[in-house]
Amino acid sequence: MNVNGKHYETIWLKPGNKKEAEIIDQRFLPFEFKIVNLKNCDDVFFAIRDMQVRGAPLIGAAAAMGIYLALCEYSNADTLDDYINRKAAFLKSARPTAINLGYAVELVLGEINKVQGLEQKTEIALKTVVKIIDKERQNSLDIGHHGLPLIERISAMKNEEPVNILTHCNAGWLACIDYGTATAPIYLAHNHGIKVHVWVDETRPRNQGAWLTAWELQQHGIPCTIITDNAGGHLMQHGMVDLVIVGCDRASINGDAANKIGTYLKALAAHDNNIPFYVALPSSSIDWNITDGLKEIPIEERNEEEIKYVQGIVNGKTENMLITSPESKVANYGFDVTPARLITALITEKGICKPEKNSILELFPEKIEMTIK
Amino acid sequence: MNVNGKHYETIWLKPGNKKEAEIIDQRFLPFEFKIVNLKNCDDVFFAIRDMQVRGAPLIGAAAAMGIYLALCEYSNADTLDDYINRKAAFLKSARPTAINLGYAVELVLGEINKVQGLEQKTEIALKTVVKIIDKERQNSLDIGHHGLPLIERISAMKNEEPVNILTHCNAGWLACIDYGTATAPIYLAHNHGIKVHVWVDETRPRNQGAWLTAWELQQHGIPCTIITDNAGGHLMQHGMVDLVIVGCDRASINGDAANKIGTYLKALAAHDNNIPFYVALPSSSIDWNITDGLKEIPIEERNEEEIKYVQGIVNGKTENMLITSPESKVANYGFDVTPARLITALITEKGICKPEKNSILELFPEKIEMTIK
Repeated sequence: MNVNGKHYETIWLKPGNKKEAEIIDQRFLPFEFKIVNLKNCDDVFFAIRDMQVRGAPLIGAAAAMGIYLALCEYSNADTLDDYINRKAAFLKSARPTAINLGYAVELVLGEINKVQGLEQKTEIALKTVVKIIDKERQNSLDIGHHGLPLIERISAMKNEEPVNILTHCNAGWLACIDYGTATAPIYLAHNHGIKVHVWVDETRPRNQGAWLTAWELQQHGIPCTIITDNAGGHLMQHGMVDLVIVGCDRASINGDAANKIGTYLKALAAHDNNIPFYVALPSSSIDWNITDGLKEIPIEERNEEEIKYVQGIVNGKTENMLITSPESKVANYGFDVTPARLITALITEKGICKPEKNSILELFPEKIEMTIK
Repeated sequence: MNVNGKHYETIWLKPGNKKEAEIIDQRFLPFEFKIVNLKNCDDVFFAIRDMQVRGAPLIGAAAAMGIYLALCEYSNADTLDDYINRKAAFLKSARPTAINLGYAVELVLGEINKVQGLEQKTEIALKTVVKIIDKERQNSLDIGHHGLPLIERISAMKNEEPVNILTHCNAGWLACIDYGTATAPIYLAHNHGIKVHVWVDETRPRNQGAWLTAWELQQHGIPCTIITDNAGGHLMQHGMVDLVIVGCDRASINGDAANKIGTYLKALAAHDNNIPFYVALPSSSIDWNITDGLKEIPIEERNEEEIKYVQGIVNGKTENMLITSPESKVANYGFDVTPARLITALITEKGICKPEKNSILELFPEKIEMTIK
């Protein structure tokens, strides 16, 4: 989408040097818009681990890029196969929850195993990275088209009043290649002239809602209001939310959805107030091997510094501020799992389905085999 | 309770000058422990409005103190009755949600109306303030004694493992005179040698959990861990919370409880995971005239700066940091209402009761008259 009127995506090959990549360093938004260089596979690992890039689809694309860059920098120190397997394992260890990471890495590995020799492997790796990026861009656009009628229908009943959509964290274009997952129907609705207003959960501790979602919506001219993570229930109790759309880091085949910590609380509130609660995700975020999301999806525990310190602006300078007593103990779980029973429907690139195995497999019949353990 | 080993309460008459009061300025905790002087009624108004003091019971006590200080500074500019009524209305306008504010002001007004003359009125006002403070201290202690067996019972089943209690915001001694409401059973359990551990919700936007609750529990030696407001649901899903205890700013006679924004979300999660959810409150927080909490309790909307800026420490100095884009729109609701159906029981100074009219009135039969509109 646009940044100051110019179109950007979240990851691309460096113009003039196809052996490096560039990304928007998302750690500094909305305070600074910084583009950084990924020179090699290690740079990609740290970009994922330290959340310069984040969001399930983008993590997958970046990890695929990491394998390609690993091939670009190969120097015979190791056998090629051992080297690539080591780099792949390293990349996969960067973050545990999003399934896209392992999925994208395996996809590239599968393709490069089909050919022999460094040059050919590098070439096919690059083709696969480009294919993954193209596919995720298209996935987002398709999710947008499938989700659009949900907003249109509410708009038609609201008589020119804006449709109020609540979202948690950032499942926007910054989490994907373009358009986003949860935001794709919102961008399309806005582009179709439908009045929308987005309640943006701040999303502690890393404030991806306040920093990324609000920023990208504002850049695109979509009215939005930041609220604390505590506020959504109150808004829903008082008829101020028409629907909820969130993203997903990993879904089980039964439709349980792991997403940013706090999503489950919003799903409970939506359920309690009869408000539709949608999870927007490309099929690359579905883990076809997992049936019980709550028991089987690994939940990342992150550094306590993320809660104890917050980034912002003091006296015109970007600073890191201590916001608890230094002695306080802190626990920092990154995700929670929303059980399928609280989800109205999944919005995928192939269409909308119920959060249950049969309904999901009707859209993705080619995956039936993968679901048989 | 103790601060660095010395016993403090939250409000007291200034030693050596009984025409002024002193409070702990809670806006600077846990970074600085500051005691400030309240010289007159206006000082009290600003202390309540700007949250130097907060918490329903403490707001009530402070407002009562405000009437007394108003009498101390009376200077014949107005008739005494007009003057006092004006000051009372002013104090009551400081914050809208907690019922204790109006309740305490009316209590003092009722007493001073029984006597004639400035001197007598001042004397009886002081007596009433002291009575309110004594009563709230005793209320907290009684709430503690009634709540203690709830923790003891769980402890007995846990075989020496700590009882994990989740709380939201600060309903600790800092919100009261001493002991607290939600924390009173926790302090007593700890003092009785029962192993407890408290999950402290950060409580955005003003971080009263991270700043006040964690601080006061740590000062008393009670193990606690700060979590984001998003995390409680995940902990409850995974058996890491044994019970929830929160405070209350105003309860309806049917047991709906207004408390810090986000409480409702935790109640939903507790309900979804069969975890007992208790609201601890003195009867001074019950609004005997309100039956439907959701419709009738006014919810304060506060300044957007509270969300856009956060206080903390940068380079050893206390600073205010901008944590959103300056252009972002923000909405800041202070409270939400947890419907009675999600509350296991109320813990009051007279005992434990179901969150429903008959059960509440069994403990407070003297209030039956007040509930007939």
